[in-house]
Amino acid sequence: MQRIQFDVMKETVKKAFINAGLDQKKADTCAQIHTESSCDGIYSHGLNRVARFVDYVNKGWVDIHAEPECVKALGALEIYDGQQGVGITNALFAVERATALARENGVGIVALKNTTHWMRGGTYGWKAAEQGYAAICWTNTESCMPAWDAKNPRLGNNPFVMAVPRKAGALVLDMAMSQYAYGKLQVTRLKGEKLPFPGGFDKDGNLTDEPGPIEESMRILPTGYWKGSGMAILLDAMAALLSAGHPTNEIDKIQKGSCTGASQIFMVFDPAQLGGSEFSDRLADSIADYVKTSQPAEGKSAVYFPGEMEVKMREQQRDQGIVVDDGVWAEIVALAK
Amino acid sequence: MQRIQFDVMKETVKKAFINAGLDQKKADTCAQIHTESSCDGIYSHGLNRVARFVDYVNKGWVDIHAEPECVKALGALEIYDGQQGVGITNALFAVERATALARENGVGIVALKNTTHWMRGGTYGWKAAEQGYAAICWTNTESCMPAWDAKNPRLGNNPFVMAVPRKAGALVLDMAMSQYAYGKLQVTRLKGEKLPFPGGFDKDGNLTDEPGPIEESMRILPTGYWKGSGMAILLDAMAALLSAGHPTNEIDKIQKGSCTGASQIFMVFDPAQLGGSEFSDRLADSIADYVKTSQPAEGKSAVYFPGEMEVKMREQQRDQGIVVDDGVWAEIVALAK
Repeated sequence: MQRIQFDVMKETVKKAFINAGLDQKKADTCAQIHTESSCDGIYSHGLNRVARFVDYVNKGWVDIHAEPECVKALGALEIYDGQQGVGITNALFAVERATALARENGVGIVALKNTTHWMRGGTYGWKAAEQGYAAICWTNTESCMPAWDAKNPRLGNNPFVMAVPRKAGALVLDMAMSQYAYGKLQVTRLKGEKLPFPGGFDKDGNLTDEPGPIEESMRILPTGYWKGSGMAILLDAMAALLSAGHPTNEIDKIQKGSCTGASQIFMVFDPAQLGGSEFSDRLADSIADYVKTSQPAEGKSAVYFPGEMEVKMREQQRDQGIVVDDGVWAEIVALAK
Repeated sequence: MQRIQFDVMKETVKKAFINAGLDQKKADTCAQIHTESSCDGIYSHGLNRVARFVDYVNKGWVDIHAEPECVKALGALEIYDGQQGVGITNALFAVERATALARENGVGIVALKNTTHWMRGGTYGWKAAEQGYAAICWTNTESCMPAWDAKNPRLGNNPFVMAVPRKAGALVLDMAMSQYAYGKLQVTRLKGEKLPFPGGFDKDGNLTDEPGPIEESMRILPTGYWKGSGMAILLDAMAALLSAGHPTNEIDKIQKGSCTGASQIFMVFDPAQLGGSEFSDRLADSIADYVKTSQPAEGKSAVYFPGEMEVKMREQQRDQGIVVDDGVWAEIVALAK
């Protein structure tokens, strides 16, 4: 473990992306986002994905020259074809375009089909919230989880994001439809530990909190059992319907890595045109305060709202440098050579 | 237990509502919806709520003469004040208005503030889907569940609905943010059984599958632990923000029964203006088929998509009559006298 300053990390990642063939602007944008995610403590979709993204570019699975193309414009709602371009720049374009539409119409929706991995979903909620807008975003993915009562993986984990702006720190939810990510299973297994709660089924169909047997069976548990399964199915259907794009069953056929060909939705709302910015900020404060002044459960010292821990981590790591795994960092330094 | 024919049930419930003071039209609409919910097997928000609704009307907690009033119109998005009118007719108005907006704009959003209990959330998803539209709807509620890591209830269970139309049977998700409803805890306790999975904490903070201790502690479990807690917080914030209405912390102060003063969102999308109706129907088929042709888990004979079981029950009970609990039915018959 070592700490790397934000700017140093960003420049190193940017060089790795330029070496992979990205132009200056895309390399800069993507490096910024991967570094921000790591700074917030979300390494799984920050630093830990840099090498995999470079690998996808090398294999031609991401078209680094493609730009999103408008295929339909219906006032407040627009559909774009992401043309399997860079997932981060496609998604940033989409949330910015949805924000511009919201500025005009109160609400703006961009449905983006045929894009690639957007990395950390929360990014797009934060981007809207930082500008004073509320947002709902989600993506479908390839299969990684069985439906409820099924054995074989046919559902994506389809991350779902909701963001409400607040001057003192936005409320930002970023949740996948599996109870745990495969990354969490791996980390827990490597430590020789058990999961805090059951995370899936072993190959014989027994619910277990042992990560190893779940990794082996691929029978990871949907969030809230049948509920996360149902929500994954509907998020997939709605994303593909709104974008006229691919559902999970078609993404599974593309076979060009995680999320290649995915459908994504970006809904942005302008509080100033609804109850007004002051109302909205007071509202968000009242919700944050109500949660935070709950009585903590046994052995807990505080109650947090979604997004709060990320901001704490962000401030700490902006100040002290971002903690990195030596192996992951060495790999990126090598890609940046 | 006995079976009551759909039309007999509807007429009886309608008389109970007319006796409570509702006009013919509102009584007819509400009776239809309560009967449809019961017919689909969702008694908790069908027949089992009739007496409670009459009680709310008698107490003046629901204004049976109020109509929703437009407070803001922004093209594809409109805000209405429900004026604490009848929850079902307010919500039906909202989804119909959102559908009309979607017909014009591809998307239509109605945000309804200051309404009352909409009964079964799925109703509004089914109404849109039956007309060939997709929908996302949700409501906030009074507190009934502690936030994650907290002891005292400060979150609503905030039901969330997503519906995608399909000729052979729509995909309709209707999920609350608690793993189980209090009604499920009660029914399970009365049978002397345990919950299938842990459903909350006892008063000492131990996770348990015994319903009694959870009913006592009011520490019901969010769906997927921290995930359902976070989603409940954001659904509340987003509903209140979009409708310029009350969040859960204000609904808690109103003290006029469940959901009085609630904020609700109705988003409707027109598939014909997106990828086209044929594309959308083929898409929904492919998703339903992919799920249904999964390998069933040990001891399971089939895998279902959300909404499928309700349609099976609906067809069966339309045909054979709707099974009712004798006590609940006797109470309604008395109200209809």
